[in-house]
Amino acid sequence: MKEKLMEAGIELFDRKGFKETSVQEIVEAVGATKGAFYYYYKSKEELLRDICISYIEDLLNQQKRLLQEPKRSCTEKLHAIVYMVIRNIRTRKKSARIFFREMRHLTNDHLEEIRGKRRAFRKQYEQLIQEGIACGEFKPSLHAEMITFGLLGITNWSYYWFQPGGGVSEEELTDIYVDFILNGIRMPERPKR
Amino acid sequence: MKEKLMEAGIELFDRKGFKETSVQEIVEAVGATKGAFYYYYKSKEELLRDICISYIEDLLNQQKRLLQEPKRSCTEKLHAIVYMVIRNIRTRKKSARIFFREMRHLTNDHLEEIRGKRRAFRKQYEQLIQEGIACGEFKPSLHAEMITFGLLGITNWSYYWFQPGGGVSEEELTDIYVDFILNGIRMPERPKR
Repeated sequence: MKEKLMEAGIELFDRKGFKETSVQEIVEAVGATKGAFYYYYKSKEELLRDICISYIEDLLNQQKRLLQEPKRSCTEKLHAIVYMVIRNIRTRKKSARIFFREMRHLTNDHLEEIRGKRRAFRKQYEQLIQEGIACGEFKPSLHAEMITFGLLGITNWSYYWFQPGGGVSEEELTDIYVDFILNGIRMPERPKR
Repeated sequence: MKEKLMEAGIELFDRKGFKETSVQEIVEAVGATKGAFYYYYKSKEELLRDICISYIEDLLNQQKRLLQEPKRSCTEKLHAIVYMVIRNIRTRKKSARIFFREMRHLTNDHLEEIRGKRRAFRKQYEQLIQEGIACGEFKPSLHAEMITFGLLGITNWSYYWFQPGGGVSEEELTDIYVDFILNGIRMPERPKR
């Protein structure tokens, strides 16, 4: 039941917004009572917190697993993380939109909890860039922190426009973006003879 | 007065959200009456529409001016657009957040109007990438549409985290991102001897 309430919450918070959704609507959507709701959640805000936590913890755990694979180069790990985030759009688009759009309705405690996890995701990503610099895969001149924000921008923005199942597949978009991230868009100069 | 109402709307919609802000609060913030509000705006939704339109039209006009400068290369124009968006954060952060977060509260007509302008901004950007490919500045293998979404991601995402006046200046961030966009992060292989 707890899971069903969360699914209904994701559906309604995404479509109508957190403030505009009542607990009554959530329980109606799953054929439950308000009593059942308050058995599992102290408040509507706590349900929002659970949706946001579940979204970011899932990403964080996936990222940890990918980064720990010992035989992969930093470039391969970068590819794996870009693919993970893009693939995530198909399964977690609504949760992601709620995460980015409704977070400000959380209490300060919950906001801090979630910001901590979001920061951990970013810092692990930045760590990968640092490691890539240290082992000579990435350029030593990079500003790792700013580059990481740029990488997050490229993939996080795709939640707003990318349609899985459309003309470009998740694998193709990953390859396009990883090539862009690694090599940029500039036409290389021909070597002088 | 119309301008003051818009400023108060930007302040309140950003802080409290569109739905949670009443016309009463907006007029109180500027010391006006509801009568004055409804003299300028048919509804609260129309004020939201004006805020969004003003935000995107301003960007669109700046972009047009930059793209029309005849003596600039495509690379220079790209730099100018990245700088324009990043500099915009300082002056239009609140409008931008309202644009991205509250747009869904617009009526369908207004939504279409704004989506059209947003698309125009993206298409002009994509056009620049196409021109850069055509004249040999950018790689012919690029997927211009997907790359444009990536470029928008890098700069639009900075609205969520970049603090103008912090450790990295707008000019520095622009240089970091333009270098990243042009050249990527990969360490170039040394030419074999």
